[in-house]
Amino acid sequence: MSTIAVLGGTGHEGSGLALRWAHAGHKVIIGSRTAEKAQVAADEINTQLGSNHASGADNISAATAADIVVLTVPYSAHTSTISNVKEACQGKIFVDVTVPLGKPVSKVQLPAAGSASQEAQNLLGAGVKVVTAFQNIGAEHLKDPTHAMDCDVLVCGDDKESKAAVIQLAKDAGMVAYDAGPLANAVVPEGLTSILIGLNIRYKVKGSGIKITGI
Amino acid sequence: MSTIAVLGGTGHEGSGLALRWAHAGHKVIIGSRTAEKAQVAADEINTQLGSNHASGADNISAATAADIVVLTVPYSAHTSTISNVKEACQGKIFVDVTVPLGKPVSKVQLPAAGSASQEAQNLLGAGVKVVTAFQNIGAEHLKDPTHAMDCDVLVCGDDKESKAAVIQLAKDAGMVAYDAGPLANAVVPEGLTSILIGLNIRYKVKGSGIKITGI
Repeated sequence: MSTIAVLGGTGHEGSGLALRWAHAGHKVIIGSRTAEKAQVAADEINTQLGSNHASGADNISAATAADIVVLTVPYSAHTSTISNVKEACQGKIFVDVTVPLGKPVSKVQLPAAGSASQEAQNLLGAGVKVVTAFQNIGAEHLKDPTHAMDCDVLVCGDDKESKAAVIQLAKDAGMVAYDAGPLANAVVPEGLTSILIGLNIRYKVKGSGIKITGI
Repeated sequence: MSTIAVLGGTGHEGSGLALRWAHAGHKVIIGSRTAEKAQVAADEINTQLGSNHASGADNISAATAADIVVLTVPYSAHTSTISNVKEACQGKIFVDVTVPLGKPVSKVQLPAAGSASQEAQNLLGAGVKVVTAFQNIGAEHLKDPTHAMDCDVLVCGDDKESKAAVIQLAKDAGMVAYDAGPLANAVVPEGLTSILIGLNIRYKVKGSGIKITGI
């Protein structure tokens, strides 16, 4: 079992993932700009699960105490949060869930570096193993850990072992995940979220997703 | 029923799509650099289907005679083929199936314009309605028109009516297709092909694909 920091873990996506990992028996530290807000989110998880696997801390303390750091902030806070926790992440697996949404959110708009995950790798440096995952998972059903997610997880990264660890984390959260190649491939899952948001709007549904076929 | 030119239609992907459209009753013109090669591919389709919906021509003649032009050439021939048929495509729907594969093919490598389809739009000019589709459809089962394809089609483009026409073409070919937003979103289906090729290699399968869920 790992100690997982979920930075931005007070949001829907982060708290949903944190809940599923706590449910699977991992130690989860919710990170937020203020430790108090993080503790409230952790208390909610512990209450729902009737356990004490979740705790709350400021982002730096959470990243420092963790083996694996997961980032689930809006894109507008991506660079600042990463700069803030850079030192605390050295030598660790860093899972970037960020989607670089612009306006309109249904139009793919990738940053100059290629992807948000590539920006993260550039900011964190070669000492951090950046892996990208979970961008296409809607937050809606995460809070019910018994709900089978109807969306697969594409895992991209340049370090095979780190990807294997994240594929296992996805499995622990009740999802099917695939090794989707190098970090350069992150443009696809990041961009896909804009397409899925567009499908939700155009086809009047709440949570479109993708499943990999033929495997 | 439409008259559809399939440029590069002697290849596996193009001839497979052409066969399915001929099977649905469309008039199909296989385009190739030489009319003779194109006619051979058309004859094979007519023989398999026991009909005469397919004919062959050089790329310019095929594009000139068609309502809808479909491009299924390798990326190395993308720019030259488009430059060649530019005039013949004015005012028409141009369906770009091209995937900008580099080495290694399992690594997403998008052109400077963003996507091959955006390059096509830039080359063809505003008088041509570029729509992008079918990049993720493996050629393997196309030649059996009764085989249900286990992969959905993401259709991107800036003209709503043209997209609706291409979604119908996908349906005619036995596939489920979705309006996946503006042409800018083509980075995702184009890049996804590299990810699917990587999944085929890593998971030792022949034809991985995607299905949209939740709609």
